[in-house]
Amino acid sequence: MKVNGVPTRTIWSLDDGQAVGIVDQTLLPYRFEKLVLSDWRALADAIVTMKVRGAPLIGIAAVWAMTLAIRDDATDEAIHRVRSELIACRPTAVDLQWGVDQIVKRVMPFKPRERFIAAVKLAEELTQANVLANRAIGTHGAKVIAEIYAKKRAPVNILTHCNAGWLATVDYGTALSAVYIAFEQGIPVHVWVDETRPRNQGLLTAWELEACGVPHTVIVDNAGGHLMQHREVDMVLVGADRITAIGDVANKIGTYLKALAAKDMDVPFYVAAPSSSIDWTIQDGKHSIEIENRDGNELRYVRGLDKSGRVTDIEIISPLTNVENPAFDVTPARLVTGIITERGVCAPEFLTRLFPEGARRGMR
Amino acid sequence: MKVNGVPTRTIWSLDDGQAVGIVDQTLLPYRFEKLVLSDWRALADAIVTMKVRGAPLIGIAAVWAMTLAIRDDATDEAIHRVRSELIACRPTAVDLQWGVDQIVKRVMPFKPRERFIAAVKLAEELTQANVLANRAIGTHGAKVIAEIYAKKRAPVNILTHCNAGWLATVDYGTALSAVYIAFEQGIPVHVWVDETRPRNQGLLTAWELEACGVPHTVIVDNAGGHLMQHREVDMVLVGADRITAIGDVANKIGTYLKALAAKDMDVPFYVAAPSSSIDWTIQDGKHSIEIENRDGNELRYVRGLDKSGRVTDIEIISPLTNVENPAFDVTPARLVTGIITERGVCAPEFLTRLFPEGARRGMR
Repeated sequence: MKVNGVPTRTIWSLDDGQAVGIVDQTLLPYRFEKLVLSDWRALADAIVTMKVRGAPLIGIAAVWAMTLAIRDDATDEAIHRVRSELIACRPTAVDLQWGVDQIVKRVMPFKPRERFIAAVKLAEELTQANVLANRAIGTHGAKVIAEIYAKKRAPVNILTHCNAGWLATVDYGTALSAVYIAFEQGIPVHVWVDETRPRNQGLLTAWELEACGVPHTVIVDNAGGHLMQHREVDMVLVGADRITAIGDVANKIGTYLKALAAKDMDVPFYVAAPSSSIDWTIQDGKHSIEIENRDGNELRYVRGLDKSGRVTDIEIISPLTNVENPAFDVTPARLVTGIITERGVCAPEFLTRLFPEGARRGMR
Repeated sequence: MKVNGVPTRTIWSLDDGQAVGIVDQTLLPYRFEKLVLSDWRALADAIVTMKVRGAPLIGIAAVWAMTLAIRDDATDEAIHRVRSELIACRPTAVDLQWGVDQIVKRVMPFKPRERFIAAVKLAEELTQANVLANRAIGTHGAKVIAEIYAKKRAPVNILTHCNAGWLATVDYGTALSAVYIAFEQGIPVHVWVDETRPRNQGLLTAWELEACGVPHTVIVDNAGGHLMQHREVDMVLVGADRITAIGDVANKIGTYLKALAAKDMDVPFYVAAPSSSIDWTIQDGKHSIEIENRDGNELRYVRGLDKSGRVTDIEIISPLTNVENPAFDVTPARLVTGIITERGVCAPEFLTRLFPEGARRGMR
């Protein structure tokens, strides 16, 4: 997508894979800054500190981190050590493990000295494939929005939680890809943007939508239920960090609450994600998906602009106060109307039909 | 309750009712400051700007505002004009209208020059009655907590939203009154404190609990559903801004989402409120209760401490970004396990049995 008129991705390779560029998302929406990282540990740190974030982007960032690590030490032992370290960076998003394993699987048949070249080639392919998958997700998702518009004949009000936009992927996004394509097609849309405490990724969503001219309104995470009660929401559309084989969805903390309200008020609830976010090895999300607990300082400090317009952090909760900060929750499949993938849209129970090869993989 | 060892109320009369003292709650938990207001408009402004807040306290503040107005102009016409202005300050909390009307009803039979003395007398009575009602609510609510403890034999985890503590009333609180009394009785409790965006009243709750030594943990509003899914919550206990005759509950925005999760996960959901919060004239809360929309700057600016420990506001959302800020939502009675009043605890459908005189008033 364009930033100040310049086509921009969230991650890109430099010097034949010797380094990668990223957008530092911890400074957005206040400052737009790029970073160049040429070391896998720096990229792993960017994943942990959420300079890069969003399940699909984490997957691709891990692909590049693995690639840079192979450049430095391509022995089997080093590869397996780095693999474990990377997977531990963010335990919930399965894309991370998927990305790392794509590289490991592909390079292992090569001799160590040939592995870096092979890894770079695959990393470039996976990066591009993410863009195409997101575009396909957007096309399928836009049809869902178009159908609602065909019935309503008034702007479609879409509530989204967190940021499932281009910033969460290499480009285009997942949930927002559908919004962008619908908007390009001339379907009138308006997006309710959940602020998404504690890290306020909703402000990234608002920043993205603003840049594209998509009408939107930021609300606190508490407000969505009330809006649904009063028929101000036509659909809920979110991304995912991990989807189980039966369609349980791990996504940013608070998603489950919105799904409950959508069910209660008969509002369709859609999840948009590439198949790399599907974990075919598990069924019951609530008991099988590890939920990352993040640092309590994410609640205690809030970033914004001070009176002179400088980016600053203030303390809203004392370091002496106990806090707990689970980063994700699991929305059970029974609350999900449909899952929008690069291959089409289906009810959660039909995921295995849409991806029969995935289902076979899960059974192994 | 005590502040730094000194018994303190949120509102108190001075100089035979010529002025009132309040705690400026917009500075808490960062600074504890008292204000003396001797003019009804200043007190009305304190209600609007939430220097005093919480439905029961708003009711008593309105009682005193009406009293101060009568001191200045006790004619019928002035009283009715001020009555309307005060009721418009905060449209959702019915206590405000209740408080104003208590004074109006009582003083009208007097000659104008006798009205101020009569108003002060009633205002003192109502202030004291609020304290006693809250203490009774706490006693009844503590029994509910004790029953859960009797079954669980481990600390009772109570999730609360917003602040229904002593700061929201004249003293003791509603939901937290039950927690305080249970804690005094030696029942082990732990409170999950919802941050409660946009105004972070959860931090007032944490400040209160800290002062009393009650174990507690602050969480973002998004986290409660996840905690309930994982059996980390034994009961939800909140206050109310207005309860209808059939038990629909208007409370701080986001309460409905917690009630849905409680229902989904079979967690008991209790509402604690004095009978002054019951509006006997309405049934269906969703369609009958006016929901206050507050200034969007409440989302855009966050208050906290800067690096040098000074209270400061930062901008997290640009003034150019659309925001919407509904302050309350309505939890339908079907999601409410019980309502805890000064007269006892009942299922929402039995409110009219607990308060037959109220039901009769509603039918008029």
